[in-house]
Amino acid sequence: MQVYEILYKKRQGQELSTAEIDFLIEGYTRGTIPDYQMAAWAMAVCLRGMTPRETADLTMAMVRSGVTVDLSGIAGVKVDKHSTGGVGDTTSLVLIPLVAACGAPVAKMSGRGLGHTGGTLDKLESIPGFRVEMTPEEFVAQVNRIGCAICGQTADLVPADKKLYALRDVTATVDSIPLIAASIMSKKLAGGADAIVLDVKTGDGAFMRDVEDAFRLARAMVEIGTRVGRETVALVTDMSQPLGRAVGNALEVAEAIETLRGFGPADLEALCLELGSHMLRLAGVAPTPEEAKKRLTRALRDGSALAKLKEMVAAQGGDVSYINQPIKLPRAQHIKLVTAPAGGYVRRIGALAVGEVARFLGAGRATKEDTVDPAVGVVLRKKVGDPVQPGEALAEIHANHPERLPEAEARLLAAIEIGPEPVTPPPLIYGVVTAAGEERLA
Amino acid sequence: MQVYEILYKKRQGQELSTAEIDFLIEGYTRGTIPDYQMAAWAMAVCLRGMTPRETADLTMAMVRSGVTVDLSGIAGVKVDKHSTGGVGDTTSLVLIPLVAACGAPVAKMSGRGLGHTGGTLDKLESIPGFRVEMTPEEFVAQVNRIGCAICGQTADLVPADKKLYALRDVTATVDSIPLIAASIMSKKLAGGADAIVLDVKTGDGAFMRDVEDAFRLARAMVEIGTRVGRETVALVTDMSQPLGRAVGNALEVAEAIETLRGFGPADLEALCLELGSHMLRLAGVAPTPEEAKKRLTRALRDGSALAKLKEMVAAQGGDVSYINQPIKLPRAQHIKLVTAPAGGYVRRIGALAVGEVARFLGAGRATKEDTVDPAVGVVLRKKVGDPVQPGEALAEIHANHPERLPEAEARLLAAIEIGPEPVTPPPLIYGVVTAAGEERLA
Repeated sequence: MQVYEILYKKRQGQELSTAEIDFLIEGYTRGTIPDYQMAAWAMAVCLRGMTPRETADLTMAMVRSGVTVDLSGIAGVKVDKHSTGGVGDTTSLVLIPLVAACGAPVAKMSGRGLGHTGGTLDKLESIPGFRVEMTPEEFVAQVNRIGCAICGQTADLVPADKKLYALRDVTATVDSIPLIAASIMSKKLAGGADAIVLDVKTGDGAFMRDVEDAFRLARAMVEIGTRVGRETVALVTDMSQPLGRAVGNALEVAEAIETLRGFGPADLEALCLELGSHMLRLAGVAPTPEEAKKRLTRALRDGSALAKLKEMVAAQGGDVSYINQPIKLPRAQHIKLVTAPAGGYVRRIGALAVGEVARFLGAGRATKEDTVDPAVGVVLRKKVGDPVQPGEALAEIHANHPERLPEAEARLLAAIEIGPEPVTPPPLIYGVVTAAGEERLA
Repeated sequence: MQVYEILYKKRQGQELSTAEIDFLIEGYTRGTIPDYQMAAWAMAVCLRGMTPRETADLTMAMVRSGVTVDLSGIAGVKVDKHSTGGVGDTTSLVLIPLVAACGAPVAKMSGRGLGHTGGTLDKLESIPGFRVEMTPEEFVAQVNRIGCAICGQTADLVPADKKLYALRDVTATVDSIPLIAASIMSKKLAGGADAIVLDVKTGDGAFMRDVEDAFRLARAMVEIGTRVGRETVALVTDMSQPLGRAVGNALEVAEAIETLRGFGPADLEALCLELGSHMLRLAGVAPTPEEAKKRLTRALRDGSALAKLKEMVAAQGGDVSYINQPIKLPRAQHIKLVTAPAGGYVRRIGALAVGEVARFLGAGRATKEDTVDPAVGVVLRKKVGDPVQPGEALAEIHANHPERLPEAEARLLAAIEIGPEPVTPPPLIYGVVTAAGEERLA
């Protein structure tokens, strides 16, 4: 088999065979196919696309490039949940204990990411003692014992994806729907998931800014899951403004605790109930989404979800007193309120801009080597649609570098638009994609 | 300036600025831009194209990547001629002395190529003593003294093209019209041409199989020439069957000598007169193409063109007795006639297949390191449209490896189609492209 012929075929818009895709990914992982040929292939894929069959083949070829996690030691259907990433996306922190409290096992592997804030691991490390490194045996044992665990991804999971992603990152070939879909799904499949719930974010602060692109990505991933025999559901959800109110590591942990207590922001709670209901249904512990939602709501109200979080934190060496008293979490030295220059209604809160302010304050990483400051970030006092008085607080800036406050304030003021007319908030969920089809909700 | 942004822009089908193209080519030549980014760019160009402005900018950026040849020491307008390459393309061997004999200076630089036969340099080296290495001073002095010279390309001419071509060759990004146009034109411009006549071949044995692609390439190159102030004319000519009768190095030298004597194959002579007339007009030594053609025909008939070849061969150290007695040129040890299995009319002589037989016999190179056998090749006794009797000779195979004769014969028989009905030969010239527009002749 010749790489040249494969590149030429894709360049001409033809479908590659399973063997050709295997050959490419295997050769690239082993280093026998050089970066420049793979870069040409990635660009051809960006411009010519891939069929669903090719995308599924690419996913499985990437899965085979490294080790896979064996979760067969855990009783029950292991449902994984993945978000394509957004600003203030605290759902995992809520969902892990919440879903486990309702009887579905949650074996969550997570990364650190290069987002506007850290990843779920970074957020949990705001809790002193919390340990995210465990052996596969410890991981499986903890899920069997208490129903949930979260740990760092092993380095040898899907090496082809790591290598290909690094190449795409420098060759302007990141935003290709089949390549993104295969990248995400390969990690979920290698991680041992039996079924998958995907939260595909759309809007200003999401990777998929356009809602139709988000549905395309959702369909591509559901199609992969279906083809490889793992039931997959994807929700397309709003990321035009940050989710919830907190954007920052410890700030989001505190918000997750509030949500598990039943006092979280309405949008964050609603989305967790929606995602959680699909997880429970796929896990086979609730017969219908309605029944699932009822149980999840009960777990938030009766304290069992919060109790599960404490159990997990304790099991992983974390100091549970921080969950009981979130005030103990790392806090910034400076808090500045951003106030409304005029009255009216909040028309827009640019999620991307808010996320960038959080990163500017130190909440996120620019490179893998950076450390994140757990304390800093932004808390929104208002959300889109809220009425506001002149001089009323719109947001809090939590900073440890006071010299950054003026710029952070100016950027937030530019990101938050206020208008004289009442505003309808954006929909939270645009639709649901399953193997059976697509349901549009907004 | 960021390479990523440039790649993304081209991926989205946008036009790159002059500065962006300069940055890419300069960085790639210097090695600060890696192969994988350039490969992604080349693939994006293949699928998104380039505007005429971008193509001209790319050409000039490549010209600036290396040294340029200064021909200002040669009096008169230096017209260069370039063929995109075909099978049995003996035109340069004829045109250099022919055009010089009519009073236009010809300072020809040539490569060795990886074609079915060697390049013009290899062909001329069939003549013992012929020397193709000379200093720029010797080169200029010889053209001033006798009107023409041919020498090898200096290694430092357009290094960006060498590097980019090698990359395109392994990333399935060779056949892009703007990239081909810029590659060809950059070498002509760096070679110091004041004006350029291009012979764009089309058909089975050409790089551009499709006639419309050939016109596209012709237009792209004329557009570049016009934009950079060098008058450029492109002919689109037939390469569905080999040009002339000889395919092989010494065989083509002998055919060129025959043509300069006025006894060459009709198609080769006609094409040389056409190309030569444009060269004379651009050089300003003939007022009209008609007048130019009259002078060229005279130079073939009165022996002055042949005399000019001898003068050039002598000036470059070659043994002129080989021109007087072409029978002295290297000759193969085995000549086998391929005969017609049935009578009728020659319908098709696949140029590509004939070229491949010549290479199989040893006339061409597969890699840069290969040497060419000057003696071997194919001579066609028939051309498309010719009537043929059963058992009559269709072609001669000239071989030094007799064990290759059976396969060569079988391949030639498969390449030459004979049918019962009279056949109209293909047109020799499909059209002429100039800055003023396009004239279709067939």
